[in-house]
Amino acid sequence: MRSKEKVQRLIYEILSILKERKHEGPQGARVIAKELKNRGFDIGERAVRYHLKHLDDKGFTKKPGSFKGRIITERGEEEVRNDLVGERVGFVIGRIEELIYKMSYDLESRKGEIVANISFLDSEDFEEAIITMQKVMEAGYSPSPLVKVSGEGEKIGHDEVPEGKVGVATVCSVTIDGLLAGEGIPVSPKFGGLIEIEDGEPRRFVDAISYRGSSLDPLEVFASKKMTSILNVLDTGSGLILANLRSIPISARTPALDLIKRAGEANFDGVMDVGAPAESLYGLPVEVNQVGLVVVGGMNPTVAVEEKDIEIETKPLELLLDISEMRHVREYV
Amino acid sequence: MRSKEKVQRLIYEILSILKERKHEGPQGARVIAKELKNRGFDIGERAVRYHLKHLDDKGFTKKPGSFKGRIITERGEEEVRNDLVGERVGFVIGRIEELIYKMSYDLESRKGEIVANISFLDSEDFEEAIITMQKVMEAGYSPSPLVKVSGEGEKIGHDEVPEGKVGVATVCSVTIDGLLAGEGIPVSPKFGGLIEIEDGEPRRFVDAISYRGSSLDPLEVFASKKMTSILNVLDTGSGLILANLRSIPISARTPALDLIKRAGEANFDGVMDVGAPAESLYGLPVEVNQVGLVVVGGMNPTVAVEEKDIEIETKPLELLLDISEMRHVREYV
Repeated sequence: MRSKEKVQRLIYEILSILKERKHEGPQGARVIAKELKNRGFDIGERAVRYHLKHLDDKGFTKKPGSFKGRIITERGEEEVRNDLVGERVGFVIGRIEELIYKMSYDLESRKGEIVANISFLDSEDFEEAIITMQKVMEAGYSPSPLVKVSGEGEKIGHDEVPEGKVGVATVCSVTIDGLLAGEGIPVSPKFGGLIEIEDGEPRRFVDAISYRGSSLDPLEVFASKKMTSILNVLDTGSGLILANLRSIPISARTPALDLIKRAGEANFDGVMDVGAPAESLYGLPVEVNQVGLVVVGGMNPTVAVEEKDIEIETKPLELLLDISEMRHVREYV
Repeated sequence: MRSKEKVQRLIYEILSILKERKHEGPQGARVIAKELKNRGFDIGERAVRYHLKHLDDKGFTKKPGSFKGRIITERGEEEVRNDLVGERVGFVIGRIEELIYKMSYDLESRKGEIVANISFLDSEDFEEAIITMQKVMEAGYSPSPLVKVSGEGEKIGHDEVPEGKVGVATVCSVTIDGLLAGEGIPVSPKFGGLIEIEDGEPRRFVDAISYRGSSLDPLEVFASKKMTSILNVLDTGSGLILANLRSIPISARTPALDLIKRAGEANFDGVMDVGAPAESLYGLPVEVNQVGLVVVGGMNPTVAVEEKDIEIETKPLELLLDISEMRHVREYV
């Protein structure tokens, strides 16, 4: 990395730290320097202060009081969002890896936090929607049948459910990656795409986007282009659903199979198939020394609701949710 | 490649050949074997006949008459579309490289075929639409101000313009790649994305998808997700438009700059910027030994029309069109 880019990257990291800690109030140079060290930037407090002064001048940060501590401004947040798209091509992966690392659910005790998607829909649509979601979940086209439902005014994740709406939290497929990582199995997201189901069996990916090559979430792209036919799969056994290709080291194949079995018993059964070593899976390439894993998309239940022309807004990879807050979908039907 | 995959690939190629030659009527085993050889499959006529018989049984091909020649069926075309997504992750690039290779336009004589996108819209929307397209083109946010307009019943490309519709052919940005390739400058598509324009100047890519990692055309994704704000750019000088990042070898930078100048004089002025050697361009990475080129998206004029809530269906990378059939957009306003 040339030094100009190094500085740009450093400034980006400083702003990201301030953005992440916005709710904790002003942050001083010492804290920031410490966090930068965690991120591989070993520079002293004085250097951090020097950059913070520049950021103040640019209007990206400011001192809220007479303290040394800085907070990020709106312009600063905008800058973080748009800066370094080069970094953000792969942004989704960054977000996924962060959630995998943070998620605390433990398969032994069946306690802790999983990764959830959050959806909002009109109250009057809820009954039809939840029935559809249950069908998708019990057909095995979602990572888990567990959901959390919140009525208007209640909190779901960071947000309060708006008037006239219902909030539904569903299990994100990244939870499966988290379970693998929890047992020391390194898993990497490769492709998000559309897999063709024929007579109830997965046949092949018909479209795919690489997680490494995109600043958008591949599954959000396919969902918003309305390319799925999940209701068809429910009715006729054939159609297109959202799925991911993950990959793990060959040596981890046996422990992974064992974990997948135990996860299934704990209501996490999103793995559709595990490939043979270094073998392409349903038409997508898998690297040498790797084994492919096909995981169903966590958005399938809510996208199926959209296929019914019910308005539902879904935020994938939204937050960590304690499993104790979730119930089996059938309890809501 | 294992033999099972080899056969699958061979069958895919046979179907592709029949699909490409659909308009030429039934194709015999000899022609197919010859074309297969061009594609690196050196198998005899008898082997081709053997596979064709299987394809007939599967309903992918059929004999239209008592001749030996086969044509592809609808099911067969569907099969080609869906098969080998592993190949098709990067499919768009294949299509682009094919068009670059086939396009015959010569900058000296200003004769030959360019690469065009085709759009269809309702006749009554035409006037407002063409005015919008002209604004986008004359503001420099399209690869060329040249268009072809066809009324109902007339042919545009392979299709006849349906009743009550108008067909509009616009210059695809791949034409610029073709001009570079025509002078022996190897150009490769890297990213399609959204570039932020500020006070009339490009500032940075805010989102991007790699051509190598996607089975969908990145620009079609951004267009269909309605993420652009081209009308804003026209009104206020600021907003988001579609653009590509291409790259060429460092050694080709000077000849490329010269070509871009001459191309501009011939109404092809789609290159927004040429980077410095090996330097990232507007936030997107460029490989060592390469120079980045930012080319405006050919769909900007039609996407701007969509932003006006006018229904317009656009097929990018649609066909090769003789330049003599095209006129400056202002002749239609």
